[in-house]
Amino acid sequence: MGWEETEVRVRYADTDQMSVAHHANYLVWFEVGRTEFCRARGFTYKQMEDAGIILMVLDVDVHFRGKAKYDDLLIIRTRIDSIKSRTISFEYQILKKESKKLIVYGKSRHISLNKKGEPRKIPERFLSLLKQGNGGKSV
Amino acid sequence: MGWEETEVRVRYADTDQMSVAHHANYLVWFEVGRTEFCRARGFTYKQMEDAGIILMVLDVDVHFRGKAKYDDLLIIRTRIDSIKSRTISFEYQILKKESKKLIVYGKSRHISLNKKGEPRKIPERFLSLLKQGNGGKSV
Amino acid sequence: MGWEETEVRVRYADTDQMSVAHHANYLVWFEVGRTEFCRARGFTYKQMEDAGIILMVLDVDVHFRGKAKYDDLLIIRTRIDSIKSRTISFEYQILKKESKKLIVYGKSRHISLNKKGEPRKIPERFLSLLKQGNGGKSV
Amino acid sequence: MGWEETEVRVRYADTDQMSVAHHANYLVWFEVGRTEFCRARGFTYKQMEDAGIILMVLDVDVHFRGKAKYDDLLIIRTRIDSIKSRTISFEYQILKKESKKLIVYGKSRHISLNKKGEPRKIPERFLSLLKQGNGGKSV
Repeated sequence: MGWEETEVRVRYADTDQMSVAHHANYLVWFEVGRTEFCRARGFTYKQMEDAGIILMVLDVDVHFRGKAKYDDLLIIRTRIDSIKSRTISFEYQILKKESKKLIVYGKSRHISLNKKGEPRKIPERFLSLLKQGNGGKSV
Repeated sequence: MGWEETEVRVRYADTDQMSVAHHANYLVWFEVGRTEFCRARGFTYKQMEDAGIILMVLDVDVHFRGKAKYDDLLIIRTRIDSIKSRTISFEYQILKKESKKLIVYGKSRHISLNKKGEPRKIPERFLSLLKQGNGGKSV
Repeated sequence: MGWEETEVRVRYADTDQMSVAHHANYLVWFEVGRTEFCRARGFTYKQMEDAGIILMVLDVDVHFRGKAKYDDLLIIRTRIDSIKSRTISFEYQILKKESKKLIVYGKSRHISLNKKGEPRKIPERFLSLLKQGNGGKSV
Repeated sequence: MGWEETEVRVRYADTDQMSVAHHANYLVWFEVGRTEFCRARGFTYKQMEDAGIILMVLDVDVHFRGKAKYDDLLIIRTRIDSIKSRTISFEYQILKKESKKLIVYGKSRHISLNKKGEPRKIPERFLSLLKQGNGGKSV
């Protein structure tokens, strides 16, 4: 329910000497997931920043259950785990496109801040679009 | 003549505190350009590595004439500048997709090595595919 | 008890357009923490890999409670949270050197594998050195 | 004449599946070289940015003649190649600390801009400190 999908291909620079994508890349791919989640819901994260709101990362957890190799196509699945007026949690699954094998999953929790770093409500127009795929209700 | 194109979107993690894509990303994007150049020519760079050949970077030059921002879509144009049995030079242009403005261009020169780091001829099947878009002749 | 410390300076390339170190860097700094933890205990992580053992990351959690800016000196504190024959958990604290403010903390859990990806006991000579700062006992 | 030195250690995340430091890292290490060059000359690059001046990269060339491995200690040598009121070129050498072998060298050319992206003279107090190690004269 409510998942949005996007794809990334593992770059040579993403690999490490274990010949797999280095684990820090997954935080970047989760972020790509968030960017594309917003776009799929009808706005861009850039528009939210232009409106003076940033979603700062508070907590992140990642669970590695498989590995990605150079040139693998990966599917990033992103959905909202929970959302309130000032905080939002995203959930992620990363699968290998060919085998559909789930290799990594995780969550990130964010707080909505203004440019001075003060907590601010997520503006209503973005909040309603974020909730949209979940039936418009808080999840 | 002989350009292959692919696209990348500037990620949040690519930006720096000047609010533009950090200049080191362009070397990674050039590499993405090479990967997709090979694919467009009918093989994968991964296949070449699996065949025991690596194209080590010898020299690189990059010229920055514009900037890319978060969420910008970029076009990476890649072609072969020159190719011999053991060395190959690629040429790159990076443009903003929307405006078609050229923002960065450059070249990279590579040597073909086996896994022990000894110079080896690029296998004929890859060499002929690489030269293909240039009329099959050395350029 | 049992903390080992090392330092990193925030590089320009580490920053993002929020003018702080991008959150994915902390996974890299945790890894630097592990490398220096091993060195402080009398061996190098490289020696362990040369002996055919890799400590693959299974799970990671990171909690962001402050921010780091370009050119800030950070202290990475690393210790063992728990250790068994095949799994090891590290705990991290990242502080700003000047203010001693704790900005990020987290944990990572690892499994000991051979080069084929099969679970293997951490060799005794490394295991005993890892446990050393904790009184030589399982923690 | 006029070289300043600093050190970096190759991180696990810096490696790629060729088991060497990925070539894009050298642009980041050149940048570390510039940061430490400024500090050695009595100011910080951060102070220059706080004064409203950024040194945007215009051109870069890098020549790879050796390789760096995980955990290698590297020496970054940085000096000014040429300096004018609005442009500055840095030159770099990266050596392995143990063997003193030169592995990579290169140059970067920069233009001094204000925050709006307009060319501006490098403020005199920074300019004189930058020229200092070269006898205070334009080089």
